[in-house]
Amino acid sequence: MNKVEPRTLPGFMELLPNDQVKFNIMKEKIKHTYEKFGFLPLDTPSIELSDVLLAKAGGETEKQIYRFQKGEVDLSLRFDHTVPLAKYVALHQGELAFPFKRYAIGKVYRGEKAQKGRYREFYQCDIDIIGDGELSIINDAQIPNIIYNTFKELGFDNFTICINNRKILNGLFESLKLKEKTTDILRIIDKIEKIGEKAVIEELDKISVKKEAIDSIIKFVTITGKTEEKITALNELGIQNELFEKGIEELTDVVRYLKVLGIKEEYFTVDLKIARGLDYYTGTVYETFLNEYRNIGSICSGGRYDNLAQYYTNKVLPGVGISIGLTRLYYQLSMINQIKETKETISKILVAPMEDELAESLEIANKLRDVGINTDIYLEEAKIKKKMKYADKLKIPYVIIVGEEEIETKILTLKNMKTGEQKKLTIEEIINEIK
Amino acid sequence: MNKVEPRTLPGFMELLPNDQVKFNIMKEKIKHTYEKFGFLPLDTPSIELSDVLLAKAGGETEKQIYRFQKGEVDLSLRFDHTVPLAKYVALHQGELAFPFKRYAIGKVYRGEKAQKGRYREFYQCDIDIIGDGELSIINDAQIPNIIYNTFKELGFDNFTICINNRKILNGLFESLKLKEKTTDILRIIDKIEKIGEKAVIEELDKISVKKEAIDSIIKFVTITGKTEEKITALNELGIQNELFEKGIEELTDVVRYLKVLGIKEEYFTVDLKIARGLDYYTGTVYETFLNEYRNIGSICSGGRYDNLAQYYTNKVLPGVGISIGLTRLYYQLSMINQIKETKETISKILVAPMEDELAESLEIANKLRDVGINTDIYLEEAKIKKKMKYADKLKIPYVIIVGEEEIETKILTLKNMKTGEQKKLTIEEIINEIK
Repeated sequence: MNKVEPRTLPGFMELLPNDQVKFNIMKEKIKHTYEKFGFLPLDTPSIELSDVLLAKAGGETEKQIYRFQKGEVDLSLRFDHTVPLAKYVALHQGELAFPFKRYAIGKVYRGEKAQKGRYREFYQCDIDIIGDGELSIINDAQIPNIIYNTFKELGFDNFTICINNRKILNGLFESLKLKEKTTDILRIIDKIEKIGEKAVIEELDKISVKKEAIDSIIKFVTITGKTEEKITALNELGIQNELFEKGIEELTDVVRYLKVLGIKEEYFTVDLKIARGLDYYTGTVYETFLNEYRNIGSICSGGRYDNLAQYYTNKVLPGVGISIGLTRLYYQLSMINQIKETKETISKILVAPMEDELAESLEIANKLRDVGINTDIYLEEAKIKKKMKYADKLKIPYVIIVGEEEIETKILTLKNMKTGEQKKLTIEEIINEIK
Repeated sequence: MNKVEPRTLPGFMELLPNDQVKFNIMKEKIKHTYEKFGFLPLDTPSIELSDVLLAKAGGETEKQIYRFQKGEVDLSLRFDHTVPLAKYVALHQGELAFPFKRYAIGKVYRGEKAQKGRYREFYQCDIDIIGDGELSIINDAQIPNIIYNTFKELGFDNFTICINNRKILNGLFESLKLKEKTTDILRIIDKIEKIGEKAVIEELDKISVKKEAIDSIIKFVTITGKTEEKITALNELGIQNELFEKGIEELTDVVRYLKVLGIKEEYFTVDLKIARGLDYYTGTVYETFLNEYRNIGSICSGGRYDNLAQYYTNKVLPGVGISIGLTRLYYQLSMINQIKETKETISKILVAPMEDELAESLEIANKLRDVGINTDIYLEEAKIKKKMKYADKLKIPYVIIVGEEEIETKILTLKNMKTGEQKKLTIEEIINEIK
């Protein structure tokens, strides 16, 4: 028979079992933290009607979408969890309790150009808090609290949550009458650490920003110091603009509540250059960096938006949320060898019959499972050495060897696969040892 | 602005939060049981190259597939977990430990005709054990052990795992020289309980089965009694056929090991009429029924196959596995009101400030989370009644009310939402009470 060459699409992550276990542990920890903060699970379909999913889209996103016909129907695969959330809330608004806090952990699809570390199918782990008409600013402080707990849970300690408020940027540019140039200016000032102040001034001049405006912008982006000092400096810039002032007020509130929440200043900072998606966020914005690996980019981002579902409903639904791109994060962490090592394997014990002690081995395995110990059993005919190799490959930490003697005496051999140490124990003693 | 009507595609399940929690609990329990038996997680892409995914397909399945072009590439959404498993094992055979035991819990896609209880996107929860060249028959007994544990874990007690062996059926028809009529005969004898013996004989006659053959078939399908009696009766049919005898031998082994595994006879039965997919299974086959709701069909099925990945590799990979169609099962159970009630909610406690005791409420919520209690907090300005209603809607069992007095005395009010009872307790006492 002619064979089809088995292959997996480029840009699609497919892991070997031991890596999959590590990946799943990270996913579980994120889920666990989200639930600890009271977020409810939501699992929307991966396929939506194109006119629903693309109600807003355009530009780059639309080009990347997996879109196709099935019969007469125009369908698309979801490219994030936000649009399906907007649809869901608009559709079920009468049945939900507000503020509606939901998490979504699942695959999304973008037909990006295939390149290293770019995935076309990837897990996004999102939380959002959606208010009914309004949503208190304290939620914006709760979010970094959740980011903090999530990355602590994932085993990281050296990270910074960068916080800004879009109203400050928007207000600044509005007051300088540079609203139309926002995108260009943001792109230029974002490079200041790389190219230096002088080059930034030159580039701003090139796009016809006036001298006084350049002065203000430079003053703004070079604000340094502790959080409070930055806020004081912002106030002292003397910018007369309602939006700008509102932004400072919100930022001040967020920072104040972050302290109440016990987040130490080493874990967060105000970064006035952060803007995120231009047409989406309207208030607080977040980015998160591993301090030693800032070059891998933000590992958790998000922000506040005024109106989640304006394309579907007249109901005003402000919200705030974040997303962790888990597939990309996993890839990046494995590249820099920063996947936190874990002792966890699926099975704690492998039951290995010496020869044909199968019935007894099955009974022993079931006894272990009955008390909640994940247990694998080797049922094939093979030399004991091969059975040990199997345990080794799966990193199963203990093997119980069941031979004739073990059955007769009811004293089993427990082998610690790491140390090689063997102990003679009853099944009850083994259970105590493992638990 | 013109609004797009928010809507979800027919045939795609989208649940409200409280239902989603119940669904996820079922999913977790299945996963938990699979892991207890040492199965490793595998998460293959939802999209595959069409020539890879459809290496074998044909007929009904192929028509239902979501298939589309992206750029120059012909893609398809996976329609089960078995084909991606075959591809995976063929691709990674050198890196896997055999027997390879994996579970897959994820969405698959079939563009079926939309009708009640039929889903186009649905969760399948699969386990398979893949041998390298050969695979002991004891694995075929291990599978019902896992089915048993899974449904027990899901809260069911009144179910039957029906077991048969395809070799018995195939051998019987081979010996009767009726191999070509297998499909038709199976369809007819499957109806015997509904239409009776006489009608079955008539129908067999209609498709030109000879009288002696009909006699043998009727004798075969009317075998009754306990498991051992059935096996004895099979042996006494006097059918001289190697395949038939091999089938009886395998079935006998499976039944023997089921007893070793402690599965009581009330939970399994030999059902000689069960065949499952005609061109796929080659040995043991399984179906599982809720005894009181047999009409909803098999809720967990599967079987033994000789060669998993013959379309991709020359390596012979026999396997045995089962699948639970969780989305359909959830739908069916909710229709017959058999979703097992659970006290589990995401949050155990809602912290509700009386008025503007926000800082203190945030601290209390964090203290509870620190000891592992999932805790929601109501941060919006609202009357306390509205906050209670929120807890009620999400079925959160406890509310901590934080007022001026509570802050002063450090004695909080804990309200049991079910009984309405209120207690005055310190935070430490509350933690003890809840944990």
